[in-house]
Amino acid sequence: MAIRYPNGKKFSEKRIPQRGKSVINKDNRFSNRGMSLEEEINESNQYYLANGIANIHKKPTPVQIVNVHYPSRSAAVITEAYFQKASTTDYNGIFKGHYIDFEAKETRNKKSFPLKNFHSHQIDHMKDVLSHGGICFAILRFAITDELYLLDASVIIRYVSDAEDRKSIPKDVIDSFGYSIPQGYMPRIDYLKAVSNLIEVQRETRKEDEE
Amino acid sequence: MAIRYPNGKKFSEKRIPQRGKSVINKDNRFSNRGMSLEEEINESNQYYLANGIANIHKKPTPVQIVNVHYPSRSAAVITEAYFQKASTTDYNGIFKGHYIDFEAKETRNKKSFPLKNFHSHQIDHMKDVLSHGGICFAILRFAITDELYLLDASVIIRYVSDAEDRKSIPKDVIDSFGYSIPQGYMPRIDYLKAVSNLIEVQRETRKEDEE
Repeated sequence: MAIRYPNGKKFSEKRIPQRGKSVINKDNRFSNRGMSLEEEINESNQYYLANGIANIHKKPTPVQIVNVHYPSRSAAVITEAYFQKASTTDYNGIFKGHYIDFEAKETRNKKSFPLKNFHSHQIDHMKDVLSHGGICFAILRFAITDELYLLDASVIIRYVSDAEDRKSIPKDVIDSFGYSIPQGYMPRIDYLKAVSNLIEVQRETRKEDEE
Repeated sequence: MAIRYPNGKKFSEKRIPQRGKSVINKDNRFSNRGMSLEEEINESNQYYLANGIANIHKKPTPVQIVNVHYPSRSAAVITEAYFQKASTTDYNGIFKGHYIDFEAKETRNKKSFPLKNFHSHQIDHMKDVLSHGGICFAILRFAITDELYLLDASVIIRYVSDAEDRKSIPKDVIDSFGYSIPQGYMPRIDYLKAVSNLIEVQRETRKEDEE
């Protein structure tokens, strides 16, 4: 018989830290404590929302629903569905009156960010958002060194379209053109400071174009 | 043996119009030809996207995925999932540099639009979007008379919060404060003209507030 907690959840030995195995993160950094990049960004967005700073959400995973079962007296159950490819980036919303649109990606590479992480329809979407005056970028994580960057979509677009044989963006390019994102506790990934810088740069660029 | 068309699709008698039953819409109106409001808005958004007018998408239905089956050599099948309540409105995107955010609802009432169609978290979301300078509204359809309106979120918010016993927005209020949306062929629901008017009015209001 399975042993259960009073709340009905199954008892699991995995929940108990084993003697000798530290559950505390050794280097005491805030990030990567078992949370995915997506989870950390979602938590940061909740912080921004609760504090009236921005309204940015992750879009739900697109799913094609084929069969739904409606049991009496309980919630509908989807019994057959398939994952669909997203036609846009994953996150969008509003910050200081600006339309914000971005994608978050991770790599275990050390010296470059692979471009295969970006689908062609995502690149098309980024181009289109920029053409309408939106703020569009990617949050890139180098997982091994736990470094986070915000990179303007125009840099990514340039790298994808420039050369057909180019398979990645070199780390030093990201260092030069991207913004380093500080990681902390509240919010975990404070990417809106970098977004403010990006908005300022785009405003200056537009002024120069007009002059 | 099933008869198939040259493209491999199954032959179906349903495709052939039956003698005596007209397949042409009697009053020759463009809308409601078996399409839902959502489908018509999606088609209009595709038109706007393809013509570089705006980039607006419906968010996927939020689904909590519980079980996924991975058959060898074919796509992953979601075998257990549940519908979740959306925490935002259904549609958002960018138009002329403005953040656009809206919900689409339908009623079979003739003289008023029931407020129970709007969940409290959607109202909270609308308030928040307005506070960040976004353009927020609802597209309302009176199904019986096939009338379409665009109504500024601030009117909906006022009606929800004004009186606890108020259960709907009267049709004449929607007539006075809303914008009638023309229905056509390309796009089916040309709501961006009304959005342009809304942007203009909000700009004037802000100017007056500043003076």
